Formats: sequence, C-alpha cells, structure tokens
Amino acid sequence: MAPLPSVNPRENRPVPSLDPLLGLLKDDLARVNALIVARMDSPVALIPQLAGHIVSAGGKRLRPMLTLASARLCGYRGERHFALAAAVEFIHTATLLHDDVVDASDLRRGRDTANAVWGNKPAVLVGDFLFARSFQLMVEDGSLRVLEILSRTAAVIAEGEVHQLITANDVATTEAAYLEVIEAKTAALFAAASRIGAVIAERPPDEESALESFGRNLGIAYQLVDDMLDFSARESEFGKSVGDDFRDGKITLPILIALARGDADERAFWRRTLEEREQAPGDLERAIRLVERRGALSETLARAICYADAAVAALRAFPDSPLRRALEAAAGFVTERGY
Amino acid sequence: MAPLPSVNPRENRPVPSLDPLLGLLKDDLARVNALIVARMDSPVALIPQLAGHIVSAGGKRLRPMLTLASARLCGYRGERHFALAAAVEFIHTATLLHDDVVDASDLRRGRDTANAVWGNKPAVLVGDFLFARSFQLMVEDGSLRVLEILSRTAAVIAEGEVHQLITANDVATTEAAYLEVIEAKTAALFAAASRIGAVIAERPPDEESALESFGRNLGIAYQLVDDMLDFSARESEFGKSVGDDFRDGKITLPILIALARGDADERAFWRRTLEEREQAPGDLERAIRLVERRGALSETLARAICYADAAVAALRAFPDSPLRRALEAAAGFVTERGY
Repeated sequence: MAPLPSVNPRENRPVPSLDPLLGLLKDDLARVNALIVARMDSPVALIPQLAGHIVSAGGKRLRPMLTLASARLCGYRGERHFALAAAVEFIHTATLLHDDVVDASDLRRGRDTANAVWGNKPAVLVGDFLFARSFQLMVEDGSLRVLEILSRTAAVIAEGEVHQLITANDVATTEAAYLEVIEAKTAALFAAASRIGAVIAERPPDEESALESFGRNLGIAYQLVDDMLDFSARESEFGKSVGDDFRDGKITLPILIALARGDADERAFWRRTLEEREQAPGDLERAIRLVERRGALSETLARAICYADAAVAALRAFPDSPLRRALEAAAGFVTERGY
Repeated sequence: MAPLPSVNPRENRPVPSLDPLLGLLKDDLARVNALIVARMDSPVALIPQLAGHIVSAGGKRLRPMLTLASARLCGYRGERHFALAAAVEFIHTATLLHDDVVDASDLRRGRDTANAVWGNKPAVLVGDFLFARSFQLMVEDGSLRVLEILSRTAAVIAEGEVHQLITANDVATTEAAYLEVIEAKTAALFAAASRIGAVIAERPPDEESALESFGRNLGIAYQLVDDMLDFSARESEFGKSVGDDFRDGKITLPILIALARGDADERAFWRRTLEEREQAPGDLERAIRLVERRGALSETLARAICYADAAVAALRAFPDSPLRRALEAAAGFVTERGY
C-alpha cells in the first residue's frame, strides 16, 4: 500500500487539462483506436456490437494514453506501444463490463450500460472475450516481461474488486483497507500501463520505477476523485449516476471521514443506510449534506491532490519536455475534473 | 467446424473407463492439484474459499489430465506440464464460474454452485482472478507458443458462449451452428490442453496435430453426451439438475433431432416451450418423452461415439503403449458415462 505522499511541489505547474496530452498523442491514439476496433471484431456479431457500445462511449482513454506517453517519454521509436495500449484498454473495458454487472449499474459515461441494454449474460461473456483478446495482443507483441506485468495486474485488479465486495456494508472498514482496495482495483492498471512504456523502450530500472510510481499515484488520485464525485458530481457531466456507491453500500473515503468526524446520530445514520442497508427517500441527500458538512469531500480532494503531486514528482526522473508538461497537466486534470 | 468423422475402428478396444488414466497419472495429478491449491491462494480470503469450493468439488480433471497424458505420450520428461495443466484447469474453472452465473445454475457436480452460495458478484470476480492466474502460470512457464494457443482458445471459448446465447430460444438453429457452438465452448479447450503436451515436448507438427485432433474430437463427444444427459441422467450421478438446458431454452442436438423428426403438434410444443419460453409443469417430462420417442437421445449418443472413435483414431500417430490404451479407455468412458 502506498503511504500518503508528502510532497509540496506546486510551483510552476501547467494548467490542469487533458488537452496537451491529447494533442501530442493524437496520431498515436488514432492508431490505437483503429486497433481496438479491428481486434474486438468477431464472427459472433453481438461481440463487436456490445464491445463497441462501451469502447466508443467516450471514455477518456487515460490508460492507453499512459502507455503511449510513457513509451515516448522514454524515447521509444517503434510501433509496439499501439498494440500494448490497446491491450491495456481491453483489460480496462473487460473490468468495466464486469463491474457494471456486479454493481447492477444502468448508466456509464452518460449512456445505458451494456448490461442494461443486452442483459448480464453477454456483458459477462464479452468481458471474458476482451480479456482474452488483450492477452492475444500481448502474446503477439512477444514480451514476456510485459505479459508478466499485465497478467499480475489483472489478478491484482480482481483481488481488489473482491476485497471491495468484502468491505462493502462494513462501516468498520479502515482507511488502510480502503487504500488497498483502490490501489488494487484502479491504481495497479495505471501503474502497469505507464511502466510497460519503459519496458518496451528498454530503459533502466529507475525509469521503469519512476513511471510505475507516476501511474500508481495518478491512479490513486483518480479513484479518490471518483469517490468524491459520487457525492458531488453533476450527473450530466459525470456520466454515471450520483450516489451509486452510497446505494451499493461501498465504503469510500468520503464516508470514512464523515463517519470518523460525525456525532452519534450521524454514525447511526451511516450504520442504518450502509451496514443495515435500510435506505429511504431523502437518505442520499442527507448523506451528501453530511459529507459536505464534515469536510469529507474537501479532505478527499486534498488527499487526491497529494497523490497527483507525487505522480508529478515521479516524472522528474525525466528531463523537462512538452510531453512531460502534458503529463503534468493531465495529473492536474485528474483532480480538477468534474467527470 | 469438424465434420462428422467417418471411422469404424471398434476392434480391440479397451474397456471404457477413466481408471487406467487416473492410475498412470496419479502422481502427476497430485502435483497439479497441489499447484492448483497453492496458486488460487490470495490475501483476500474469499478468493481461495470460493475457488476451493468449485475446484475441490470433485470435477473429473479431464482437461489437465489431457495435458499430462499428451506430454508423456510425447516422451516429455520435465516438469513444465504440471503448471500448464493447472493453467488449463484454471481457465476451465473460470468459465464454469461465469457459466453458472450466466445460466443462473444452482447445482454443479452435485453441490450448490458458487453463485448460489456467495451470489453472482464474487463468482464473476473470482472467475476473473482465476483467468488472470492461469495466464500468470503460463507466463512463468515462458512459452509464447503455449500462450498463443491458450489465449486464442480463451477468446474462442467466450465467442462460443456468446454464440450459444444467440442461438438459445431459436428453434431455427441449424445443426452446423450447434456444432460450431460446442466446438468453441467445449472442444477448443480439450484440443488446446492436448496439443500443448506436444508443444512442450518439442514434437513435430504432425504429433501436435494428432493430439489437437484427439482433444477436439473427444471434446465434441463429451459435449454431445452432456447435452444428452440433460434429458436422461440420473441427477444423483449427473451432479447437475436434469432439464437445465431445456429450461434455459438452449438448443441442443437432442432437441434439433426431435424437432426435425416431430409432427406439427410436437413442433408447436418445442416452439412454445423454447422459443416463446412458456413452460408449464409437466413440460420437461413431455420433452424427455419426445426426445426418447423420436430416437434423439440414441442418435446423439451414436454421433458422440463417432467423435470418440475419431479421437481414438488420431492416437494412432503414436505407438501402442499403456498410456495410449488408457486414453482410448478414457475416450470410451466419455460416451459411456452417466455423469
């Protein structure tokens, strides 16, 4: 588990935005998107239909961009990063499909989820297909080191998701357990996606570690903000339903902070709604008021900014460049985003 | 799609039984079982609990035995086949977990399914975990050819499962489409499990193909018998609930044969129960009477025996030996089994 990073490098920071990164990687990303479409194809037509629904639903492509950017930051000049970025996105998409089944979610990125349109059965099976395809792409690339990193990551993601199931509805969950969950379910893939850029560029271990650390800290920041947005986003921007985590009884940092700072009445409220799963109309609104009143959202955001800062600090292993600045701007975006 | 094999090699056939194979592979299988238990472990305790429930539930371990037997038939003397057999079993177990969620099954191998005990969520996620672990085992082994074969197989299995979903409830499904489904969802893993034994033994392509063909034909025979047993098994032996496929509207060969041979009344019955999904008490019993009366079960079994014969014929690429005879006996078992 990554401890809370202690860094304070706010000086000379680029404006938070994904745009510089999107600008620099535009052509690379177009290649990756073409590969994604080509490789999710199957004679079984429902597979590209369903996969296309989620793949084309306007995701930010953050994870494949990390692979592309890391490879280029390491001076990589070949073409292997396209297929590996696609493999990373397939792993991510497979976990999204399974998550939405597990959470019975109806809305993702502002559209109906695949399980809401086609039912749970094909959503589970197409997730399996994309997962297998991801490994086919890696095998074609032929690097056992990349395969080792991403197969381990896939196992860690599944462990994190099961761990999350276990901590759900348990208000005695510790912050440490929460951090373990989000590191596994989210940050591990950010870390691996970044690291493999250095691997294919055949850079020394310290650059691999620096990119690993960049991705891991960025992933934690990303998930912290996601968990904050579940209470505070405007749905039209967020794309998901606000309050999904609360309704599922997921124990996230905003709740843990509000619990710790709340009075007996509030703790009883959290126990009833999360542990005993008795939610009545108006409870979500009360939960939102409580996390706000107890400063839990601003505290969660402050922690996210710490992790984003640590991500930026890790990039100092590389010389200043437009690409490094674009990654710094992207780290800023992760904590400023409303979606 | 494999055409119906035309072979007639009934002479000098060993008594149908799994026992000779179990006897010859006893020590190898103990090593594989130990690996399976060791590698399904996780700090998230629910994972080994749930995985252990299905892994230890008395499966026949047919697929890993195919890898072990093929390697030894090819004269392999090393230890790599243990981990690869475990990887094969993990892929199989992952698909079982997901199948049971997709089919909402309550019973497998005579025990409650994992989804019936723990719910769908951890069953989906532990399936993902085992799938990832399977690739970790292959990566540790380090053969890109084995990885290529098994990652493609995993994609084909998922395609077959989705294809099966599409043909469900469609009485216009052709026998060709049915065969495609069972080749993909079942026979592909039998084929791959057998083939990789030759790969690690570094045998020439014709031996690889012979074992591929052995596994594929055996897998088709296995699934044909499975589909027959859904109408005819004694539940205490079968371990699954009789009539599961019928209730799900799966279009299997016994139904396709009964449909083709039935009169207008019978076709109306199949359409109502399978296509319109209107099943009333007594319908399963009537379906069982119809597939029996129309000779659909004996015809399905006859086809299974043809495929098992083709599997045995493929083994002639290897000299006679106790192990080859044990595999022949196992092929006989596949079509004689009541479970």
